[in-house]
Amino acid sequence: MTERIIKVGELNTGKLNHICDVEGVLVGHKTIIDDDIRTGVTAILPHKNNIFLNKVIASSFVMNGFGKSIGLMQIDELGTIETPILLTNTLAVGKVSDSLVKILIEENPKLGTSLGTVNPIVLECNDGRLNNIRKIAITFDDVKEALDIANTNNFQGSIGAGTGMVCHGLKGGIGSSSREVELDGKVYTLGVLVNTNFGHSSSKDLIVNGKPIGKQIQKEQANGEEDKGSIIVVVATNIGLDNNSLRRVVKRASIAIGKTGSYVGHGSGDVFVGFSTANSISATEKSAFLNQTVLSQKYINLLFQAVVEATEEAIYNSMLYSIETKGYLASVKTLKNWIKDIR
Amino acid sequence: MTERIIKVGELNTGKLNHICDVEGVLVGHKTIIDDDIRTGVTAILPHKNNIFLNKVIASSFVMNGFGKSIGLMQIDELGTIETPILLTNTLAVGKVSDSLVKILIEENPKLGTSLGTVNPIVLECNDGRLNNIRKIAITFDDVKEALDIANTNNFQGSIGAGTGMVCHGLKGGIGSSSREVELDGKVYTLGVLVNTNFGHSSSKDLIVNGKPIGKQIQKEQANGEEDKGSIIVVVATNIGLDNNSLRRVVKRASIAIGKTGSYVGHGSGDVFVGFSTANSISATEKSAFLNQTVLSQKYINLLFQAVVEATEEAIYNSMLYSIETKGYLASVKTLKNWIKDIR
Amino acid sequence: MTERIIKVGELNTGKLNHICDVEGVLVGHKTIIDDDIRTGVTAILPHKNNIFLNKVIASSFVMNGFGKSIGLMQIDELGTIETPILLTNTLAVGKVSDSLVKILIEENPKLGTSLGTVNPIVLECNDGRLNNIRKIAITFDDVKEALDIANTNNFQGSIGAGTGMVCHGLKGGIGSSSREVELDGKVYTLGVLVNTNFGHSSSKDLIVNGKPIGKQIQKEQANGEEDKGSIIVVVATNIGLDNNSLRRVVKRASIAIGKTGSYVGHGSGDVFVGFSTANSISATEKSAFLNQTVLSQKYINLLFQAVVEATEEAIYNSMLYSIETKGYLASVKTLKNWIKDIR
Amino acid sequence: MTERIIKVGELNTGKLNHICDVEGVLVGHKTIIDDDIRTGVTAILPHKNNIFLNKVIASSFVMNGFGKSIGLMQIDELGTIETPILLTNTLAVGKVSDSLVKILIEENPKLGTSLGTVNPIVLECNDGRLNNIRKIAITFDDVKEALDIANTNNFQGSIGAGTGMVCHGLKGGIGSSSREVELDGKVYTLGVLVNTNFGHSSSKDLIVNGKPIGKQIQKEQANGEEDKGSIIVVVATNIGLDNNSLRRVVKRASIAIGKTGSYVGHGSGDVFVGFSTANSISATEKSAFLNQTVLSQKYINLLFQAVVEATEEAIYNSMLYSIETKGYLASVKTLKNWIKDIR
Repeated sequence: MTERIIKVGELNTGKLNHICDVEGVLVGHKTIIDDDIRTGVTAILPHKNNIFLNKVIASSFVMNGFGKSIGLMQIDELGTIETPILLTNTLAVGKVSDSLVKILIEENPKLGTSLGTVNPIVLECNDGRLNNIRKIAITFDDVKEALDIANTNNFQGSIGAGTGMVCHGLKGGIGSSSREVELDGKVYTLGVLVNTNFGHSSSKDLIVNGKPIGKQIQKEQANGEEDKGSIIVVVATNIGLDNNSLRRVVKRASIAIGKTGSYVGHGSGDVFVGFSTANSISATEKSAFLNQTVLSQKYINLLFQAVVEATEEAIYNSMLYSIETKGYLASVKTLKNWIKDIR
Repeated sequence: MTERIIKVGELNTGKLNHICDVEGVLVGHKTIIDDDIRTGVTAILPHKNNIFLNKVIASSFVMNGFGKSIGLMQIDELGTIETPILLTNTLAVGKVSDSLVKILIEENPKLGTSLGTVNPIVLECNDGRLNNIRKIAITFDDVKEALDIANTNNFQGSIGAGTGMVCHGLKGGIGSSSREVELDGKVYTLGVLVNTNFGHSSSKDLIVNGKPIGKQIQKEQANGEEDKGSIIVVVATNIGLDNNSLRRVVKRASIAIGKTGSYVGHGSGDVFVGFSTANSISATEKSAFLNQTVLSQKYINLLFQAVVEATEEAIYNSMLYSIETKGYLASVKTLKNWIKDIR
Repeated sequence: MTERIIKVGELNTGKLNHICDVEGVLVGHKTIIDDDIRTGVTAILPHKNNIFLNKVIASSFVMNGFGKSIGLMQIDELGTIETPILLTNTLAVGKVSDSLVKILIEENPKLGTSLGTVNPIVLECNDGRLNNIRKIAITFDDVKEALDIANTNNFQGSIGAGTGMVCHGLKGGIGSSSREVELDGKVYTLGVLVNTNFGHSSSKDLIVNGKPIGKQIQKEQANGEEDKGSIIVVVATNIGLDNNSLRRVVKRASIAIGKTGSYVGHGSGDVFVGFSTANSISATEKSAFLNQTVLSQKYINLLFQAVVEATEEAIYNSMLYSIETKGYLASVKTLKNWIKDIR
Repeated sequence: MTERIIKVGELNTGKLNHICDVEGVLVGHKTIIDDDIRTGVTAILPHKNNIFLNKVIASSFVMNGFGKSIGLMQIDELGTIETPILLTNTLAVGKVSDSLVKILIEENPKLGTSLGTVNPIVLECNDGRLNNIRKIAITFDDVKEALDIANTNNFQGSIGAGTGMVCHGLKGGIGSSSREVELDGKVYTLGVLVNTNFGHSSSKDLIVNGKPIGKQIQKEQANGEEDKGSIIVVVATNIGLDNNSLRRVVKRASIAIGKTGSYVGHGSGDVFVGFSTANSISATEKSAFLNQTVLSQKYINLLFQAVVEATEEAIYNSMLYSIETKGYLASVKTLKNWIKDIR
């Protein structure tokens, strides 16, 4: 059991308090630090098998679409994902997407012919304050490594796609948390992984678990700018959900963002993607009908509570696991410096 | 087996070539003709039991939202309907909705208390050319009668909510058609019921089953106005579908409308609602999970074809079953006069 | 200048700290209290002239669509409203809509003929705990009175449509607040009016201006239920906005709701409608082009901040202006009892 | 004046009957033919100046989202585009996007720093029958060339992104058409460019300008498969439109697709993007308000008619300008062989 740095809400966490508490989910990070580069790639895999051949039910919600993420259109149409979800920086989306497609072509001889093409999911935030984003430093090998090393370790903070992110004027990045939900006497898990880059260069609005710590931090910090930047939220669960219910669940991530002090700024790409591992869909299945076990909507409030709690805690974790970072255009402190004030 | 007036497409129709070919579906019409009044109510019931207690999976699509229909918001959120679907004229939506709610309150003692409120579905077209719509002539008793007499008879044309409708400058109204679809060796049915009021006062664009008959009709008719009016399309099927797949199916109704010569005019409320009777949802069910049988998306093209064919044929049926009508502001001919030219 | 009971955020309020600070906006309330009835109607008028003839630019956002509000489809399609916005209880939507249509028919001789039909906007919450909602107690005269007496008085709390509402287990209802925004050296106003009925019978999650007062209140109160109920948010501004920008603004109301402790429950109809009085659209205008002054999106963060602050404060005002109420199924306390704990 | 191969509808075309009739619009094609490669890139530029610095108002509509296009999310949020629109094959989207971003980084020193990042628009169809799509044959230089050579020449058919496309079982690809619209006594233009790849390997459903020629073609052709493939529709106009009205216009492209015999198949990515050159938005503008001239919605039917006519004609042009092609997995005939049957 991982010790919690900060405790948000009422529901129990899973063992790791991490998205990998959802059975089968794997996460891999490739961190790239070099000269003026502070960036990376993070891969989230719904399961360890071939995802193109065993799709999972998925949904997305865009709280603010000032962003360049790709793959959402097909998620909305078909309600499934068929690749790992990759997180990276804004200007690297094309490169990372191209790399993911090439890797999947290698792995799937029938991709592009009898099994159709593939819909890569690449979600992004702008790490341009700490990273020279114009260099597009990420390579095919970086993407491949992030996928190859995916595991269930509880890594968070200034890692992978989170390496150069800034949240509420402090160091942000990768954060995660999970919640357990009991349904019909059985315990299920909902996990969240975020890449936080919102509230950008200002700390003044930051609220941590109800404590308006931001104004105090701001006094000791640089001047603020308006709310911009982005946040990516990935939600995983082993609870059976159709993609409509799943969209309702992921939509609530916005409430957690608001609780940390943001009003979801104009310049922010606030993009949420969720998937359920309960009813996978085989690409080669021939029968006309699928049997699916889906949650009754009467019980969905439990998931709403779980996703709001886990997203809020994941945001704080992204900041509390991150380290003070000097990068391309700025030097950014960590929330850990104020840990005593928020506990 | 009903004889088909016109044969659209390739798939077989059901026995009645009517929405009631979908087992359990009932339709009731109340026609109101009096002085300057030509209007009515049409009720479509997904099944004969209490729908509030046994909801069905549903979806909607709005091709053009210049309309006053009610109930779509909750369909989109929950993916279910819990009342009959009522069709009527534009300014009567409030009255018909109020009447439906009162009827449901009588029938359901726990409605409004332990079982929550109810979401009435009332869809409309503007019959103001043949009907003095400002009078709001429809009463509580009219609504109740439409519901009470619902049956599986194949009534079409100038009846119920279709009484005062005008389509492509000719008499429109209620039309219906159905298609059979074979899946895993079993025959299923998809039925469509339309209330046609689009292309309003002009016939020039009318195409019937590929024949651009409109220009010829226009020569013998009054001058045309621009494309306005509305069309309501209700789709029923006994094929198991989640509400996302169902939305994809009903969205294709727009293609059928285009095939009849319309470009979906600005002034038109083109609203489509579909439901599947396969997986009903009990309002009093306690278990957290539902088992649902849903169509694999690989087979959905069959339903796309079925809905386009049935909607197009239902539109022609609405015009071919209608009778020449002299009403409030105009006198409108029937397409039957040109039946020899389109066969 | 109205004294503020509670001060949320940083921006200045308008003179009244009320939606009527937006020039031209009027509000009328009809309160109905009788035996087991605790309900009413609230009317918001964008301006004092004929709205059907002088439409205003509008937009909506549905945070959770478990609700029965009507009129949103056409707002989304055309980006305008053409009637006052009426608030009432859930089962009265049909009756109130029917009444509004009849009033507009009387006022507009060409409505339904040469000027087309009208799209009534009626938004609702379920007041069934304090009101015998099954009785549908609201009459045509009640609706007419709410419209006729509309004014700029700063009335809030247990009034009009708010009479029977319950928020976070305490008395809710009508609340309002406003913010001033400076753009290009000129001061503009954004006002919010809410009808609060969410968090229903539980207070435990309530947060007031950052203070988690709910747990303390809950100890002295009845046991909680899960998050249900609804909230209607109406946003008015004299800032020129196209309907896309306006949708982005009203969407942020969800952040304010989250700040008060809700995760936007399954059973809630959380519906937001906004309008701008800056560029009105004449129903009889003949020219093909309109000249509009619209806000550059670069400045929209100011409006995001304004709408989040004003909505949050309006929610608290709805509770702080309300009075302890004994109604149909329950007796509900007022937040005023805890006023000393939240200041 | 270009001679029209086929004449659809009633409105006049512009001089070229091509999207470049809209003043300022440029199109560039890079065709790649080599061994098993039949693919390419097509670039549409809203104007000849720096688009990142002078954004244009834009909108999108997804008729069927089984596709991998990128850039739509930000179009929907902000209502603008800030790059040329690139068309290519499905698996090359990442590579083409990456190339476009790199070109824009070179051209804009402040991109990624003080002027933020950029949202590339890359739309795709699957040319995998004629092209070995797994090879991702498109290079940075190919993308750059398509942009650099952009001009107003009326090139259509098997060119650029259209090189390997198949439509209704015949050779498809790039097609274009335009319409003139008179408003307040002045003539405006709406132009359409399509890349057609739908109805894939079957001709049986093909209708050309009302003639159901498909069945006849099918007899002389290979057997059909179900409706799959994709179509990209790009709409340009010099009429002032807000992005909501623009969305309504581009949405009508689906009607034109239906008229050619498709029911918009499951496997199709049917994606429409439109832009208006009338009100450009400077990236460096400081004032808070923009003055915009936008079309009154009362006149929008003219644009609906124009976009349906031009899209339908552009689809036929894509097939009639294309040449018989032997490619990777198939050999595909051209509709020109049946030109006498459709005139």
